[in-house]
Amino acid sequence: MASTAGKVIKCRAAVAWEAGKPLVVQEVEVAPPQAMEVRLKILYTSLCHTDVYFWEAKGQTPVFPRILGHEAAGIVESVGEGVTELAPGDHVLPVFTGECKECAHCKSEESNMCELLRINPDREVMIGDGQARFSVNGQPIYHFLGTSTFSEYTVVHSGCVAKINPEAPLDKVCVLSCGFCTGFGATVNVAKPKKGSTVAIFGLGAVGLAAAEGARVAGASRIIGVDLNSNRFETAKKFGCTEFVNPLEHTKPVQEVLAEMTNGGVDRAVECTGNINAMIQALESVHDGWGVAVLVGVPHKDAEFKTHPIHFLNEKTLKGTFYGHYKPRTDLPVVVEQYLKGELELEKFITHSVPFSEINKAFELMLAGQGLRCIIHMDG
Amino acid sequence: MASTAGKVIKCRAAVAWEAGKPLVVQEVEVAPPQAMEVRLKILYTSLCHTDVYFWEAKGQTPVFPRILGHEAAGIVESVGEGVTELAPGDHVLPVFTGECKECAHCKSEESNMCELLRINPDREVMIGDGQARFSVNGQPIYHFLGTSTFSEYTVVHSGCVAKINPEAPLDKVCVLSCGFCTGFGATVNVAKPKKGSTVAIFGLGAVGLAAAEGARVAGASRIIGVDLNSNRFETAKKFGCTEFVNPLEHTKPVQEVLAEMTNGGVDRAVECTGNINAMIQALESVHDGWGVAVLVGVPHKDAEFKTHPIHFLNEKTLKGTFYGHYKPRTDLPVVVEQYLKGELELEKFITHSVPFSEINKAFELMLAGQGLRCIIHMDG
Ligand SMILES: NC(=O)c1ccc[n+]([C@@H]2O[C@H](COP(=O)([O-])OP(=O)(O)OC[C@H]3O[C@@H](n4cnc5c(N)ncnc54)[C@H](O)[C@@H]3O)[C@@H](O)[C@H]2O)c1
Ligand SMILES: NC(=O)c1ccc[n+]([C@@H]2O[C@H](COP(=O)([O-])OP(=O)(O)OC[C@H]3O[C@@H](n4cnc5c(N)ncnc54)[C@H](O)[C@@H]3O)[C@@H](O)[C@H]2O)c1
Ligand SMILES: [Zn+2]
Ligand SMILES: [Zn+2]
Ligand SMILES: [Zn+2]
Ligand SMILES: [Zn+2]
Repeated sequence: MASTAGKVIKCRAAVAWEAGKPLVVQEVEVAPPQAMEVRLKILYTSLCHTDVYFWEAKGQTPVFPRILGHEAAGIVESVGEGVTELAPGDHVLPVFTGECKECAHCKSEESNMCELLRINPDREVMIGDGQARFSVNGQPIYHFLGTSTFSEYTVVHSGCVAKINPEAPLDKVCVLSCGFCTGFGATVNVAKPKKGSTVAIFGLGAVGLAAAEGARVAGASRIIGVDLNSNRFETAKKFGCTEFVNPLEHTKPVQEVLAEMTNGGVDRAVECTGNINAMIQALESVHDGWGVAVLVGVPHKDAEFKTHPIHFLNEKTLKGTFYGHYKPRTDLPVVVEQYLKGELELEKFITHSVPFSEINKAFELMLAGQGLRCIIHMDG
Repeated sequence: MASTAGKVIKCRAAVAWEAGKPLVVQEVEVAPPQAMEVRLKILYTSLCHTDVYFWEAKGQTPVFPRILGHEAAGIVESVGEGVTELAPGDHVLPVFTGECKECAHCKSEESNMCELLRINPDREVMIGDGQARFSVNGQPIYHFLGTSTFSEYTVVHSGCVAKINPEAPLDKVCVLSCGFCTGFGATVNVAKPKKGSTVAIFGLGAVGLAAAEGARVAGASRIIGVDLNSNRFETAKKFGCTEFVNPLEHTKPVQEVLAEMTNGGVDRAVECTGNINAMIQALESVHDGWGVAVLVGVPHKDAEFKTHPIHFLNEKTLKGTFYGHYKPRTDLPVVVEQYLKGELELEKFITHSVPFSEINKAFELMLAGQGLRCIIHMDG
């Protein structure tokens, strides 16, 4: 690989030229990594709903042409100046949020919102020089979430890269770089249900199922899945869901349905929909005195969270989290080891795979609500 | 005292006959305590803003005629059937929220919202038989918060009574039965600021000053008082406030003022105003990643808490608490011991005193925003 270091690489990438239009798999140029950056060869990437939101650009700032993708696994091709903790050949997971290890957030035990490298969906260039590393005939192609993994090669900040055990199968652990960790961590790191407690999961997509899996691993005795799509329940059972509520099948608000099912409210609620109503319902569904609701979904930019403050006075807690409160560089290698020890069942999340040339099929599957994660093989 | 047990007691009480009209100090009849109830001789009571709210009955359900009052200290006169943990002569603090020790809340380490005896401002009778124990010429006079301490004698549920060290001066510790514990506990038990952190206190009434005192005792290095009334700041300094912000003196929203003063937000905010805007500001003022906002004020019944959910996604936490998360029977005796050991400076809160016959002066002082706590001496 040393032969490509320092040079522009020509490779295939799936470019989103326009909102909602199929990606175009075509040749792009990928500039070498600058100071504190690394260039990665992506081997596997998967599609997450967040990619779809920014591709549709409904309720989000449209930025085009852009290379989407943020759930992926790969190998370091070359490193820029000043990068000491990564070297060519390292097996890595790029992550949409980084860890500089220097800022107040990185130094805090509570936060994973690195000041320098936190998620910023509106940023379309590298933070070092404000330029894109991708181009087509000299036209810059913008970055997405600092990762842009829908490309055979991509350039990311070295603070957004977790170095992992090279024995880990990259076609499986790639789901750790977003969906799985986001949901699982929201439950185990933030909601922290006690053994024997009752947990409601709002939204049974990949993130919600990972949250349910977290509740199962934490020893919750009742895991109530809430989704507008009843088809989700069959799958959800495999992830520990013991009961199911479809709000559309009830005349009462789902808060009341849950309160009746649980003698006053669930102990924990984890919202994984992105829908503001579900966010409010999650808070209002938890038991007074000790209930904790955790928001995970990415809201519409004009969404407004509205509730009567009595819910707080009644000693409910509302929190939010992103990336499951994991610090990517510190925690992700540990999560990979948990997987290698058999503690996490990532395979359950992987329902489809497509060659890179057919990446638009992954979009179609997600839009049709089919399956959970579709792994895109970059060599195909 | 045994001579009065089992009999109706005639004594003086301050009756609120109409919303906003001066209380009438007059003779009332106080029936003996029924099963699980105790009758208390109140020696000292003080006025809290919550009394004023329900007396004004703006934004709260009007219930009249009623005997208000909930911050007080006294002695058990007689006990009803089944009461085993209290006996005539015990020194006690009645509390507006109870502890049955049997329900899920009482058994939970996290909650102090006893299922049976939690605060219920709309309840105007005893829970045992749905009757009032007070009457005037056979007309029932309603209870308030299960305490109704603006009477020489009152009947309360035994679960709403904390038995305390008889050496404690009742004219001081009476403030523990509401204001002090509410604010102090909101900080030390719920917001839990770390040593060296920055805490904003919204509202510098007695509750807010007790919250500031909690921040000082917890070792906060900056305590920023926020109040619409700049006169509050001089007093607030005695309670540890190091800085002051009057939102009316700024063109920017107070959230932004605080963010600029603190490099992104305060570590903790405790809202002690009852004003919905201040509640929202408290949340929006805390630092992302680790900030915790705690709501204490009692909101208007139609108030709506509105914010962009991004505040939660940015890893802020919003909680509420009442009575500072103290369990009255379990924790209050311990707080009294802390006071006796010199760890709490209750005297700072007591700025006025009046004889019972002049109780309306205490209302005037509070409406004029003068002083903090006015102790009402029942023998005067
Ligand atoms: N906070 C983070 O770090 C982070 C990371 C990744 C994804 N996300 C967000 O998490 C959310 C879930 O992601 P996903 O990939 O699982 O999405 P998904 O679309 O596969 O699943 C969402 C599910 O929610 C259900 N749903 C929608 N509205 C609902 C409502 N009102 N009540 C109940 N169910 C409802 C849908 O039917 C669907 O099954 C998205 O908002 C995504 O952007 C957040
Ligand atoms: N949760 C509980 O258990 C509990 C118990 C007791 C009292 N309370 C409530 O706590 C609150 C405070 O009680 P108190 O006795 O200290 O009242 P207080 O009226 O003496 O003090 C309130 C202070 O808040 C200030 N204020 C009002 N609106 C404001 C705003 N928008 N921004 C900044 N400051 C503002 C006022 O100027 C005043 O100084 C009340 O709502 C009371 O009902 C709650
Ligand atoms: Zn950082
Ligand atoms: Zn994602
Ligand atoms: Zn009070
Ligand atoms: Zn109880």
